[in-house]
Amino acid sequence: MLRILLINDTAKKVGRLKSALVEAGFDVIDESGLVIDLPERVEALRPDVILIDTESPGRDVMEQVVLVSRDQPRPIVMFTDDHDPRAMRQAIQAGVSAYIVEGIQADRLQPILDVAMARFESDQALRSQLSAREQQLAERKRIELAKGLLMKMKNCNEEDAYTLMRRQAMSRQQKLIQVAEQIIAMHDMLGH
Amino acid sequence: MLRILLINDTAKKVGRLKSALVEAGFDVIDESGLVIDLPERVEALRPDVILIDTESPGRDVMEQVVLVSRDQPRPIVMFTDDHDPRAMRQAIQAGVSAYIVEGIQADRLQPILDVAMARFESDQALRSQLSAREQQLAERKRIELAKGLLMKMKNCNEEDAYTLMRRQAMSRQQKLIQVAEQIIAMHDMLGH
Repeated sequence: MLRILLINDTAKKVGRLKSALVEAGFDVIDESGLVIDLPERVEALRPDVILIDTESPGRDVMEQVVLVSRDQPRPIVMFTDDHDPRAMRQAIQAGVSAYIVEGIQADRLQPILDVAMARFESDQALRSQLSAREQQLAERKRIELAKGLLMKMKNCNEEDAYTLMRRQAMSRQQKLIQVAEQIIAMHDMLGH
Repeated sequence: MLRILLINDTAKKVGRLKSALVEAGFDVIDESGLVIDLPERVEALRPDVILIDTESPGRDVMEQVVLVSRDQPRPIVMFTDDHDPRAMRQAIQAGVSAYIVEGIQADRLQPILDVAMARFESDQALRSQLSAREQQLAERKRIELAKGLLMKMKNCNEEDAYTLMRRQAMSRQQKLIQVAEQIIAMHDMLGH
């Protein structure tokens, strides 16, 4: 069963979402108003999904969503009355997996959560591909830089420099990027 | 007003979605059953959004969604009765911007479409970032390859080879990658 962290950012003491969740038999592991330390709470409680009940998502809610998405990514479902397309765009860019406008029916919650989780997975896969490519690009630049420095220091050609770096990486069981960083650090220290 | 292309993949001649759209005053520019040339139709009709009404999305629907997402990306909203999480995951991976299970209410259509469009934009932005990084990475590899070939051909060092390539690019008002491709082609032709 899904473990749900419920954030009630409405004026009412018990939001409409709570009743629908209880009615549908969900496991609400924790409920609170909007907190300023949402990532820490997510880390402590480890919910499967975060539900936010809000009349209209303000800047403080969005900030918490951005922080969670960066530090403790989870599917976040936002139930709201705000049908301003700008609010939708902001929420989705902040990391919301599902933005549901107007009305909460108990019998719709399960498919809504399932879709949100599928969306979250697909989004995370895309983001991790992107960050892998960005890292590859950055590492490649550092390795090229180190190779150039080594060519100067050893007065050798490109192939020889590359062979040296690969040999060093193999004999020390390190990655090429680690060897590159050592060369760059050494070059800085020697004050070339 | 949104220009909607409606695909009715249900057994009924007029799907429930059509009536809700008409009731809500939307502009349905075209309606048809599931077609095998959806990308071509999208290109010809240029809808703002594609709505698919299907009891359960089969492999033929998914294939059309994949093709549209690749060739003519548009927000695609799928209304269905299928609440199997596998179907959701497949649909979202295929490129569906919103997957709505059970029931269509006219007064909910506008926010559903707006959210789908916001999702589509954010997804496209992420995908184009990813493909830009992949292209950068590929170009960098080709440029490095060309630089190495040039070093051999001119018997010069890395810096000189790079300077030569940049000068050639500037004087011919070409991109560095174009110069690199010329060097690689030339090297192949000369049979080095």
